[in-house]
Amino acid sequence: MPVIEKAELEGFVGDVFRSAGYASEEAGLISRLMVAANLCGHDSHGVRQIPTYLKRIGEKQIVPNAPITVLRESPTTVLLDANRALGHVAAARALEMGVAKAREVKVSVAAVRNLNHIGRVGAYPEMAAEQGMICLAFVQGHIRSVAPFGGLDKKLATNPFSAAFPNPGGAPILLDFASSVVAANKIHQAYDRGVETGEGWIMDERGNPVRDPALFVEGKAAMLPLGGGRGHKGYALSVVTDIIAGVLSGAGAAHTEREIANNSTLLITLDPEAFLPRKEYERQVGELVDYLRATATRPGDPPVMIPGEFEENHRREREAHGIPIEEPVWNHIQEAVAELQVALPVPRSA
Amino acid sequence: MPVIEKAELEGFVGDVFRSAGYASEEAGLISRLMVAANLCGHDSHGVRQIPTYLKRIGEKQIVPNAPITVLRESPTTVLLDANRALGHVAAARALEMGVAKAREVKVSVAAVRNLNHIGRVGAYPEMAAEQGMICLAFVQGHIRSVAPFGGLDKKLATNPFSAAFPNPGGAPILLDFASSVVAANKIHQAYDRGVETGEGWIMDERGNPVRDPALFVEGKAAMLPLGGGRGHKGYALSVVTDIIAGVLSGAGAAHTEREIANNSTLLITLDPEAFLPRKEYERQVGELVDYLRATATRPGDPPVMIPGEFEENHRREREAHGIPIEEPVWNHIQEAVAELQVALPVPRSA
Repeated sequence: MPVIEKAELEGFVGDVFRSAGYASEEAGLISRLMVAANLCGHDSHGVRQIPTYLKRIGEKQIVPNAPITVLRESPTTVLLDANRALGHVAAARALEMGVAKAREVKVSVAAVRNLNHIGRVGAYPEMAAEQGMICLAFVQGHIRSVAPFGGLDKKLATNPFSAAFPNPGGAPILLDFASSVVAANKIHQAYDRGVETGEGWIMDERGNPVRDPALFVEGKAAMLPLGGGRGHKGYALSVVTDIIAGVLSGAGAAHTEREIANNSTLLITLDPEAFLPRKEYERQVGELVDYLRATATRPGDPPVMIPGEFEENHRREREAHGIPIEEPVWNHIQEAVAELQVALPVPRSA
Repeated sequence: MPVIEKAELEGFVGDVFRSAGYASEEAGLISRLMVAANLCGHDSHGVRQIPTYLKRIGEKQIVPNAPITVLRESPTTVLLDANRALGHVAAARALEMGVAKAREVKVSVAAVRNLNHIGRVGAYPEMAAEQGMICLAFVQGHIRSVAPFGGLDKKLATNPFSAAFPNPGGAPILLDFASSVVAANKIHQAYDRGVETGEGWIMDERGNPVRDPALFVEGKAAMLPLGGGRGHKGYALSVVTDIIAGVLSGAGAAHTEREIANNSTLLITLDPEAFLPRKEYERQVGELVDYLRATATRPGDPPVMIPGEFEENHRREREAHGIPIEEPVWNHIQEAVAELQVALPVPRSA
């Protein structure tokens, strides 16, 4: 499969979005965030999305260079209208405002509505953590694909939740997960690859477990909430996220009919120094990481991972050796950009 | 099994804690919160704990009428030292201060350390919701009982997470769950009842799945993180909760050696009116509830539940018909209070 250097892929993606009408700075931000998703191993949320985003720009669902406007603001809170910006730009703006407020008043909440797909959710809390802040992100998904626990109908989106923490020993400690068993894009990825989904990911319209991703892609299967037999937990997390990100942002809860894809987002940002000196915070987190790493595992099993280490390991590997892009994904991207007069990057190997 | 009226049980529990040295107001608060856990169906966190709390008072792990002191404070944040108060008193105080701050500045964070067991976690966010606020609670558990995902050793506590939302149509919408598959007290309950644990709750020291709760009670089995095959999610939630509740409160992360049981707690309280008018919030949440209730289920299955409805249904039933208390639990309570000169309530039936 093609393997492309980070810098070359970033240059290409930036060119694509400039050609699609974006100003240079926004195109650069989108490019860095999209490639960063691939870099850290979440290919489902990276450059694979280029064709979808271009299509939505064509449909005016996504508006390049849309102004991001303040609807309500207080010293601790802000509500933004993204006016159909691509989510990456809008969520990064909300994060920036949230971090600035948390620096002033210790804790802030920034919400944004009317934005398209934000890509990898964890990217935004990570940005806060890199600036010394703790951040929680709640995101309302845009496709009803998940059944409430005990039910059959697709009523909720995958409504992801993320949190990141400054980590003195390396990349931020990161939680980043859908409140469903997996993110929907993981099922689309299985479909692209022609493989079965994992066990317990989806069920058919009568509630029988199935593993054919085509059923999901065709709308004939629902995803299950996180937790399996304890799926009331994932379901509750999904409802919570729907209220926090959907209702508070003014986008409306899951029942709302929408014209455009929606990734309403609410970010809670917290300065750890409101509670303890930075040095003490860092010492505690460093010791916790060492303590978790020392966990015994079954003979032959790899060591336990620290949340965020999956991403960190992929980042190290792919920064050194390039980003592999699956053949069908790469072909699809090339078709999508064919009319844009953009030079394609040269893969390292094919 | 004995069934006791709410008011009679509250009177009895209040008498127990007054006899154990509590001032009347604190004893009343503890009593209301403990009985409320039974009322809403979480018997594992209710009056079943009386013998444990009395033992800890005897050991001076729990100090009746301990002052709850402010260590750090800003307009948005507060850090409290509970000075070994029972958690119910300390968490209720933190919640009260958090709600008062959120009324002033829209969002607040209240953390408290050096407190004993807080009982049912959901009780505190519910109190905020009943006052019109949204509240998230992160609690550090006090017994290392859960293995990191992929590991064998008991390194983390069950570190629960809870969130509650004002609901115009009834009791607050409530998420309240351990980041492990279940709360540890559910396994102790299985042990008391002489039944097996649920599947996938615990594993032995070699990592083989087991279902004998005695193995867990004897310290020879570890709990698994929420999520089964996707248990990296529950593990990440546990680490996140450990940092938020343990590190920020100054209690220290999971590796910290402790002299006393610990339920360090951090509460984030948010005024929905920072983002939208109260009426609009209520309309949206009401519509979401109706929409979820209308979910189709398998033939013969009950309707889908709204998060918090389990608690609400139990509350309605037990307020009308009394609180059943399992025979061994009731016997254990009677033994524990034998020396306290407290009149026992008269069960409705035996």
